[in-house]
Amino acid sequence: MPDSINRQIVLAAYPEGAPADSDFALAESPVPEPDDGQVLCRAIYLSLDPYMRGRISPAKSYAKGVAIGEVITGGTVSQVIESKSPDFAEGDIVFGYTGWQDYAVMEAGQLKIVDPQLAPISTALGVLGMPGMTAYTGLANIGQPKEGETLVVAAASGAVGSAVGQIAKIKGCRTIGVAGEDDKCAFVVEELGFDACLNHKDADFAGKLASVCPDGVDIYWENVGGAVFEAVLPLCNEFARIPVCGLIAHSNATELPSGPNQVPVVMRSVLTKRLRIQGFIVWDFADQEAEFIENMSGWIREGRVKYREDFVDGLENAPGAFRGLLQGKNFGKLVIRVSPDPTR
Amino acid sequence: MPDSINRQIVLAAYPEGAPADSDFALAESPVPEPDDGQVLCRAIYLSLDPYMRGRISPAKSYAKGVAIGEVITGGTVSQVIESKSPDFAEGDIVFGYTGWQDYAVMEAGQLKIVDPQLAPISTALGVLGMPGMTAYTGLANIGQPKEGETLVVAAASGAVGSAVGQIAKIKGCRTIGVAGEDDKCAFVVEELGFDACLNHKDADFAGKLASVCPDGVDIYWENVGGAVFEAVLPLCNEFARIPVCGLIAHSNATELPSGPNQVPVVMRSVLTKRLRIQGFIVWDFADQEAEFIENMSGWIREGRVKYREDFVDGLENAPGAFRGLLQGKNFGKLVIRVSPDPTR
Repeated sequence: MPDSINRQIVLAAYPEGAPADSDFALAESPVPEPDDGQVLCRAIYLSLDPYMRGRISPAKSYAKGVAIGEVITGGTVSQVIESKSPDFAEGDIVFGYTGWQDYAVMEAGQLKIVDPQLAPISTALGVLGMPGMTAYTGLANIGQPKEGETLVVAAASGAVGSAVGQIAKIKGCRTIGVAGEDDKCAFVVEELGFDACLNHKDADFAGKLASVCPDGVDIYWENVGGAVFEAVLPLCNEFARIPVCGLIAHSNATELPSGPNQVPVVMRSVLTKRLRIQGFIVWDFADQEAEFIENMSGWIREGRVKYREDFVDGLENAPGAFRGLLQGKNFGKLVIRVSPDPTR
Repeated sequence: MPDSINRQIVLAAYPEGAPADSDFALAESPVPEPDDGQVLCRAIYLSLDPYMRGRISPAKSYAKGVAIGEVITGGTVSQVIESKSPDFAEGDIVFGYTGWQDYAVMEAGQLKIVDPQLAPISTALGVLGMPGMTAYTGLANIGQPKEGETLVVAAASGAVGSAVGQIAKIKGCRTIGVAGEDDKCAFVVEELGFDACLNHKDADFAGKLASVCPDGVDIYWENVGGAVFEAVLPLCNEFARIPVCGLIAHSNATELPSGPNQVPVVMRSVLTKRLRIQGFIVWDFADQEAEFIENMSGWIREGRVKYREDFVDGLENAPGAFRGLLQGKNFGKLVIRVSPDPTR
């Protein structure tokens, strides 16, 4: 039986710049009841991802934002508590966008079964979930890594970046990571097998990047924007591809950087080097999910793709953990443990 | 028999900003003689194109620049005066990069036969030459126009822009031109059949552009950069394509525009709208030339593609005409008549 109280974290105010604790509020409501065709879920793991910063902004983006007073959007691995759908049974483990709360009633069509035999269920939020599929599809469709090419990816120890680099390595690329802490850089090289990883806080970051990319850059996976993009652009080879997946360095910015306006520099590089800069989100390639799961789970079993999770206990700690995520404080895929994992 | 003197226009100095007459010099040298496998050509028509501004700059670009004292690069329609190659006969009309001069000795492999039966031979520099093929291949490979989409192209009365808009129209697009003079705008709508054409010097250009693109912009053909790009970007639909073909508005700039730095605005649009911004040059698609000639010459015969040429007499007037080109003073494909056309 469920508890009688549903804890929810709602948006109290649109953050200006970096989110503050006061932008979030803890609310309590009764546990909702499912109608026919619906399923009551209880969150086990809540995923925290950079894209959420865009959802709690009033600016227009590719998805509808969270309104003031609404529960914050988020994907979870949950357990089915009560099902009024023939597609799900009590006890099933499911993935869905149930949000920053203990309980949610979902339409059956909004949920997907998670197979606990495939891998630990939390990976449905990371390497076998949206971040891993982002890496897989963005590379397959835009990055198009070829044997012997050089790839650079920032936020390299994160959920997307670590998958990007390891897949590129499988495809035969020289793979260079960028991260914000020396211990993350060490992990990226020693555990994930990247060829090098640089700390973007290093005073001579641009110079060091050039030295570890002696043949230039063929793919720059854009996770961050800002100074890393500026350092990579002059190194890009002709026909380099730049999949634009995220811009976390801009996400808390309240004003544009000072001038001069560098757009002509970027566009001139695009023209003279015939660069391809292309934005995407993972759902643009939703029809490639089965292929992704098959390949990625195979690589994990073979030990060719590794992953790291950074667990934080307690729904009430989600706002603080999310603030840390935007500052790069997490180390690996950030996951909130909302309730005990029944499969462990 | 050739004259004994070969007039040449050489680069006297790298222009700073807009080229000045003093950046060019008229030189005279003996008419060169061909060796085995070579061909002596005499220029009939010299093409002046915006890309040449990049070639007379010391900045690195996709092609080797012109050194001080060298003849300026340029494509011509020429006549074979003397051939020591079995592939060409005296009197043949050929296309080649013979440069800003009366006579040139070329390797046979550097020349292509121009068929005077297909169309007036000057069109081998325009609608049936590099500019037309730029339009055709950039649209086919990057722009990818679909029935019912909206395309915007600047420099719409020019050699590339006029072909871009007419091909897009054939593909079923709503086609919006941008030009810098009202008489060019009238020509673009009345003669070329665009749906609308706006003068970018109009005080409310951005507002008018929005009003003639009620369904947004699906393809923005980037010929110019600067203010037109800034006005189009907010109108772009999801999955819009931006083939980057030229940046003539930047080409004379000696410094970057003042701040703030708008790169984050561009990249955020790329991400949230999943834009594809891709640079190219026509030779990236050299293997599509036969297809281009077949389709384009067919459309010309059917009256579905029209073209306008702006002839200037005399090699000595090339520097002044080129300076005008960079200021948008030409009206149609700019061609220098170097010597009489033997086919007319």
